[in-house]
Amino acid sequence: MSEYVPGLEKVVAVETEISFLDVVNEKIVVRGYDLIDLAKKKIYMDIIPLLLTGQLPNTEERVKLEQEITKQSALPDSLIQIVKQLPKTIHPMDALRTGISALAGYDDSLDDQSTEKNIHRAFILLGQIPMLISLIHHRNIIELPSDLTYAGRFLYAMVGSRPTPLAERIFDQTLILYSEHELPNSTFSARVIASTLTDLYGALTGAVASLKGPLHGGANEAVMQMLQAVQNKEELKELIIAKLMRRERVMGFGHRVYMRKADPRAVLLKQSLAELSKEKKRKDLYDLCIYGEQIMKQEKNLYPNLDYYAAPIFHLLGLPTPLFTPIFFASRTAGLCAHVIEQQQKNRLFRPRVRYIGSTLID
Amino acid sequence: MSEYVPGLEKVVAVETEISFLDVVNEKIVVRGYDLIDLAKKKIYMDIIPLLLTGQLPNTEERVKLEQEITKQSALPDSLIQIVKQLPKTIHPMDALRTGISALAGYDDSLDDQSTEKNIHRAFILLGQIPMLISLIHHRNIIELPSDLTYAGRFLYAMVGSRPTPLAERIFDQTLILYSEHELPNSTFSARVIASTLTDLYGALTGAVASLKGPLHGGANEAVMQMLQAVQNKEELKELIIAKLMRRERVMGFGHRVYMRKADPRAVLLKQSLAELSKEKKRKDLYDLCIYGEQIMKQEKNLYPNLDYYAAPIFHLLGLPTPLFTPIFFASRTAGLCAHVIEQQQKNRLFRPRVRYIGSTLID
Ligand SMILES: CC(C)(COP(=O)(O)OP(=O)(O)OC[C@H]1O[C@@H](n2cnc3c(N)ncnc32)[C@H](O)[C@@H]1OP(=O)(O)O)[C@@H](O)C(=O)NCCC(=O)NCCS
Ligand SMILES: CC(C)(COP(=O)(O)OP(=O)(O)OC[C@H]1O[C@@H](n2cnc3c(N)ncnc32)[C@H](O)[C@@H]1OP(=O)(O)O)[C@@H](O)C(=O)NCCC(=O)NCCS
Repeated sequence: MSEYVPGLEKVVAVETEISFLDVVNEKIVVRGYDLIDLAKKKIYMDIIPLLLTGQLPNTEERVKLEQEITKQSALPDSLIQIVKQLPKTIHPMDALRTGISALAGYDDSLDDQSTEKNIHRAFILLGQIPMLISLIHHRNIIELPSDLTYAGRFLYAMVGSRPTPLAERIFDQTLILYSEHELPNSTFSARVIASTLTDLYGALTGAVASLKGPLHGGANEAVMQMLQAVQNKEELKELIIAKLMRRERVMGFGHRVYMRKADPRAVLLKQSLAELSKEKKRKDLYDLCIYGEQIMKQEKNLYPNLDYYAAPIFHLLGLPTPLFTPIFFASRTAGLCAHVIEQQQKNRLFRPRVRYIGSTLID
Repeated sequence: MSEYVPGLEKVVAVETEISFLDVVNEKIVVRGYDLIDLAKKKIYMDIIPLLLTGQLPNTEERVKLEQEITKQSALPDSLIQIVKQLPKTIHPMDALRTGISALAGYDDSLDDQSTEKNIHRAFILLGQIPMLISLIHHRNIIELPSDLTYAGRFLYAMVGSRPTPLAERIFDQTLILYSEHELPNSTFSARVIASTLTDLYGALTGAVASLKGPLHGGANEAVMQMLQAVQNKEELKELIIAKLMRRERVMGFGHRVYMRKADPRAVLLKQSLAELSKEKKRKDLYDLCIYGEQIMKQEKNLYPNLDYYAAPIFHLLGLPTPLFTPIFFASRTAGLCAHVIEQQQKNRLFRPRVRYIGSTLID
């Protein structure tokens, strides 16, 4: 048996054609493309087929896919009733986990786990999950105008009104940046679960559970809470220093893989935050974030990760803080489904061992 | 980075005081005890605190715990409504996954993830999960006599009538044998998810998803389907040989860790099946199982695992086949909760790496 490495740090657990964090060249490679390039030049509706099939669509294919996804985004009636009956106080991630799990019950070909079928399922889920998050939040189905893009529909379904072109573009870009990122905990969870040859809904349900954790996706929510807990830069500095003194983590900083280098996604989102805060006349929030970044650099030599800048962007887009992590999940659905499909195509059951440090046998 | 090992076979991923498969000495060590010994001498209500706190209870402690668990086993009213509205055709594992996920919404101290609180939560879940499975199956709450043991209540809630003493004892023993088993996929899934510091319900939800898979817990259901698909030994032999010719897996055989050795749990359950099949006058079923074991030994040199003998036992206990895997989950809840608690006590986020075999960067 191998040596014990806590958290499987640097352990290669998966062979994949989907993506790779190339730390040396500071690139996030997704299906052979640079994710940051994609975020600048493409829209999320291009990234979905890229992740799931390996190919960027042409315009015609993209339009067709967008129509298909929109058409199939409605939720089953009894699922709507189920979600409405969840306790009012439930965390949206818990409701989302429950809703995605329940969706399995409405899939009448659940036993068909062929690649083709799972890609089709993924498309449907990419339509349904934003609607599910909207339902969880509003406890009602929102009527949507029919002339919106995927990102526009998504944002409208959350905030209940038509976004400005800039807001829509920045939201779309954030979806791309969140869409895929090699093997974070949630993707690993989904692949581990999928390796029992269980269904796609189950693997995604496990990924929601993982993403909720504060060390993972839950961080974007926590960042916003921190930014809102202070009135000005001085208070932010005090709060951060106090946290560090107590040896607590400051959310939105650090990353297992980058750690002492900048997260290229955060770099791009910082620019977008500058633009958006101008339109929304909230330079104060932008300045506060920049200041927080500086303090963490000085104090701990740590860089912001994607969640740090996604939080104020989501906030300026009018999104309620408890929806930040569900939206992260929705955009990651494309990457997660790609990983589940790949895992099951060339499967080997995950079943590692332990180092036992408990009592020896008592006779 | 390390070498890529598919399925993390033989990779030490966790340090634990809970249990260990000591293949050399052919023992399953649980908190310093031999699991097979425990199954012979103790009842499931002893194993719960052993797993969760590391100590076997004395009689007084056991009685108190049993009362506490029974008292808190009721399900919230709106959850009952939710479960009743799930599609009639949903697989019980999908319904169980949904129900456990939803239970998070009723926990008004979900943010308290202290060990003490999580142990208490585990006790409550150990009461609620059998009731949830019963509700999923009957679509109704079954009234239970108040004079039953944990195993007796559980079995009554499934079949709707009082078990014989032998039936109750054998069911209890099966619960013990299923209660904990080092680091199978579901336990690993739960620990991976828990390492984001997400909540206990989330980690368990992921474990249900894993356990459903046919390469894992789903096997006990598949074994029963196989045994019921044949009329006699000859047909069983034909069916097995045909499967092997098609290079399909015969469910209930093989194990990542034991593989070419007997699973000690299966050895004990085989004896219990002999007793139970006498009481139920179903020596035919016993003989069929023995014969299947012989064929697999001859043809593939593979031994039965726990699921192979649990399936006919559950069947003779009057349990419907689709409930086999949910019952496996219910008994494993004790071990799973112990692992989640241990993970979070000495946590390090699981975040391994990949070997990228996709396209290199396209400029
Ligand atoms: C993401 C994260 C879990 C990666 O952590 P990891 O690979 O397990 O790294 P470690 O926990 O070993 O951290 C290494 C060191 O940096 C420190 N550190 C890492 N992230 C930190 C943070 N956000 N705040 C304060 N200190 C941090 C650790 O305390 C540790 O210091 P030490 O060696 O003095 O104890 C971690 O950076 C973190 O908790 N960040 C905050 C949560 C977050 O933003 N998550 C979203 C990630 S996309
Ligand atoms: C449990 C299990 C997944 C462990 O598998 P693993 O560690 O991944 O082992 P492998 O799949 O590499 O199997 C090794 C060899 O034994 C064979 N084998 C293992 N279990 C087999 C089974 N149940 N039926 C037929 N062949 C089997 C494999 O085909 C393989 O043969 P090969 O080398 O000729 O290809 C596997 O034994 C299995 O699928 N069993 C049936 C499902 C089951 O009962 N699960 C419950 C486990 S508690």
